[in-house]
Amino acid sequence: MDENLKARIEESFAAQTMMQTLGAEVASVTPGEVQITAPILPIARQQQGFGHAALTFALGDTAAGYAALTMMEPGRDVLTAEIKINLMNPARGALLRATGRVIKPGRRLVVVSAEVHAEDENGAETLVALLQGTMVPV
Amino acid sequence: MDENLKARIEESFAAQTMMQTLGAEVASVTPGEVQITAPILPIARQQQGFGHAALTFALGDTAAGYAALTMMEPGRDVLTAEIKINLMNPARGALLRATGRVIKPGRRLVVVSAEVHAEDENGAETLVALLQGTMVPV
Amino acid sequence: MDENLKARIEESFAAQTMMQTLGAEVASVTPGEVQITAPILPIARQQQGFGHAALTFALGDTAAGYAALTMMEPGRDVLTAEIKINLMNPARGALLRATGRVIKPGRRLVVVSAEVHAEDENGAETLVALLQGTMVPV
Amino acid sequence: MDENLKARIEESFAAQTMMQTLGAEVASVTPGEVQITAPILPIARQQQGFGHAALTFALGDTAAGYAALTMMEPGRDVLTAEIKINLMNPARGALLRATGRVIKPGRRLVVVSAEVHAEDENGAETLVALLQGTMVPV
Repeated sequence: MDENLKARIEESFAAQTMMQTLGAEVASVTPGEVQITAPILPIARQQQGFGHAALTFALGDTAAGYAALTMMEPGRDVLTAEIKINLMNPARGALLRATGRVIKPGRRLVVVSAEVHAEDENGAETLVALLQGTMVPV
Repeated sequence: MDENLKARIEESFAAQTMMQTLGAEVASVTPGEVQITAPILPIARQQQGFGHAALTFALGDTAAGYAALTMMEPGRDVLTAEIKINLMNPARGALLRATGRVIKPGRRLVVVSAEVHAEDENGAETLVALLQGTMVPV
Repeated sequence: MDENLKARIEESFAAQTMMQTLGAEVASVTPGEVQITAPILPIARQQQGFGHAALTFALGDTAAGYAALTMMEPGRDVLTAEIKINLMNPARGALLRATGRVIKPGRRLVVVSAEVHAEDENGAETLVALLQGTMVPV
Repeated sequence: MDENLKARIEESFAAQTMMQTLGAEVASVTPGEVQITAPILPIARQQQGFGHAALTFALGDTAAGYAALTMMEPGRDVLTAEIKINLMNPARGALLRATGRVIKPGRRLVVVSAEVHAEDENGAETLVALLQGTMVPV
């Protein structure tokens, strides 16, 4: 089942040109949890040279959305109704890793959260952002 | 003064490679309010072909951040501490226009909001998203 | 119609014991906008003697919820799915006035905002809090 | 040290009349985590007879604020700059238990979260709400 789940998410992910622009990849898919990774590309910086908040948001929101999708029937798609991000540390290093999780599944609303960590060349992690939001099946 | 203000913001904006990647421009700057516009580029789509939530977020967050910067002394920079986005309509049409506004200025925290509208070829507007957040001077 | 609307909201409001505990009243009802007022009672203070954040939240959330209810068919009730509050000034003075507004009506989700102002003895207003959230019809 | 910490928080808590109105108590204090409990009093209901969202908010916000205070020097007080709540299940049962945690300490901003669970007569727990916010030392 997880292979089907991963295939469904990979297919949707491949249709998101923004994900390709940012160099993002689906790193793992399990029921209720999805990880997305991306480098901090030169094209995705803010004014101080760190990864842009919109990059961090893109990864966290996408990981959270696909985490919600793992709890829905095949054929459904998912949209973000709302999401909030607290940014805590600069997005710098070798890689950003967003982990999206389902907090409360539901037929009409799915409450989700996501953590985005930056990983340096030695694999040391720093928490860059925490997100909390609501996904809706469509 | 507004010319200086605009120059300060244009300079910071030019250093954000993410803004260039998304084709964004500073459309207007007045004390407490900044507008950013961008097309919905083929590289910035979600899985249904609409503009990605991260595009809408990028414009709204940036407009709100620069609105906050208009209330700060020269030489300061601004970071997003946290921001929340409610997404209401698909990002489609000729242009997205984000209008960021200062709700409450402050030395330590600046409360901001932003509206992001989509404009079609005839200039008709649809509200795509509403954001509310907190900027910090650095 | 507005009289019926007001009667529906007054009936629901009267069933909320928390509103009576806080001394709150429905001050005005129009389609898409509801005002709730309350004094800052001695029983509803925080540690510095100002009105508690939960008082401000209670009024803003309730005004926003009933604003959403004005856009729904009779017989429906409304619940808060999520809401965010930015607190900007202490809740002090003669009265708190919460104004809830519908930003985007919808059959499944209603996006709302609310402002909470404090009014002093001379009627001068200070913005205490801004809320943005999502209501769901039930 | 934890005894001093608990004493500091108990003292501040005792000055919050809203907490007494709601019947709330400090259940536990450790560095970075505080629990607050309260019954669902008849005076704190919403229109369907469940605990009011403002009760849930009050407990979650207070637990999160005091969690932040555990990371600050003696003599400091803490205020909520902003907080977001996702409400997931009705507040019903014998008791509400809010657990506030520090996500990221800081001199100027402290990022916090809180979970609010309802406990029934048998001690079974249901997640009522999740909060994420920003506290500021004053």
